[in-house]
Parts: sequence; C-alpha cells; structure tokens
Amino acid sequence: MTHIANTPEPPYYAVIFTSIRTDGDTGYGVMAERMVELASQQPGFLGLESVRDGIGVTVSYWESLEAIKRWKANVEHREAQRLGRSDWYTAYKVRIARVERDYGL
Amino acid sequence: MTHIANTPEPPYYAVIFTSIRTDGDTGYGVMAERMVELASQQPGFLGLESVRDGIGVTVSYWESLEAIKRWKANVEHREAQRLGRSDWYTAYKVRIARVERDYGL
Repeated sequence: MTHIANTPEPPYYAVIFTSIRTDGDTGYGVMAERMVELASQQPGFLGLESVRDGIGVTVSYWESLEAIKRWKANVEHREAQRLGRSDWYTAYKVRIARVERDYGL
Repeated sequence: MTHIANTPEPPYYAVIFTSIRTDGDTGYGVMAERMVELASQQPGFLGLESVRDGIGVTVSYWESLEAIKRWKANVEHREAQRLGRSDWYTAYKVRIARVERDYGL
C-alpha cells in the first residue's frame, strides 16, 4: 500500500493489526497479497493501509462491526489466520476501534 | 519501534496517523524521534507503534480523549505539526478511534 485510505466521514471502524513475523517467507507473501485482495472485495470494506519494517502495522477500515465479524469468519481468511498463528507470526495484536473523528492534509 | 505496544484492557483510544513524506530529511528524523520521546512522557500515554516504508503508519494509544487533546496542544508538538504541514508531508490523515476490543498471540 502506498496511499492513504480514502475513507468516508466517521463514524466507521478500524481493525489495527500489529504483528512480528517469523523468519523466512513460508508462503506468507502470497497469502498476504491474497488477503488484501479478498478483504477489499468484502461488503463493508472501506480501505486499508499496511506497512512492514521490523514490525508490521496494517489498518483496515470497515463500515460496521458486523462487516468485521463477517470478514473474520471468511473461510479463506480463517485458514490464513490459522497459518498466521502456527507459522508466520511470533506475536500479534488485533485491536478493533470505532473511528470517531478524522482530519488531514 | 520494533515491538507491539503493551496496552491495558480496552476501552482506550488510538490515534492513527498515516502520512506520506516529502523528499529529503530537512530536520524530520530528529523531530520524529523527539516527538516519540515527548509523547511517551505525556499523561495518559499508553504506547506507540510506528512503521514507515513508502507510507508511514503511526498508532499511538491513550487513556482518554482529554489526553489526546492535551498532546495535540503541547507547544513543542504544535511546532512539529506546523513543520509537518509546511515541510515534511505531502499528505496525511489523523483518525481518532476508541478501541473497544483487542486480542492477540
């Protein structure tokens, strides 16, 4: 991602996913790209910002908690989550937050 | 930052700052480090995660909206914000969000 997500007026929701990778790729790169593609096709998806350098911070934006719940339950995404826990991350944190205000330049 | 912020049980607040830098340093690196140091000394500061690679995503965590407001009004931070608008960023977005739930590995 090399641009700022073009989100609508708040309120909307953010999923802040912070992670530390294990060594080696072991299928991670392909799956990470696929998950961005798949997320962006979900109902209620509003945008995504993702950067990794040492730690990774990925913020995805959603219309509602329901949309986030559906995305978490997506079958292909569940398999990625499983591999994330077993193979790709030494640690991660997911934070679900309600965006109340935004401004910018 | 190379670790995941050790935040308390929700609810708490997140400031998601996504930005695109101008070319050249022009004092940015020193100020960015100083702002992390200064933020971490503020009352109500809970932690910070920051990554830049093309775009930058910095998420800082706070106890309350009041703590965020005080940080925004900090004199030294205001000067950094001014230089950010004039010199360091071609674009940025600030999103203020209430973290309602979190989980991790």
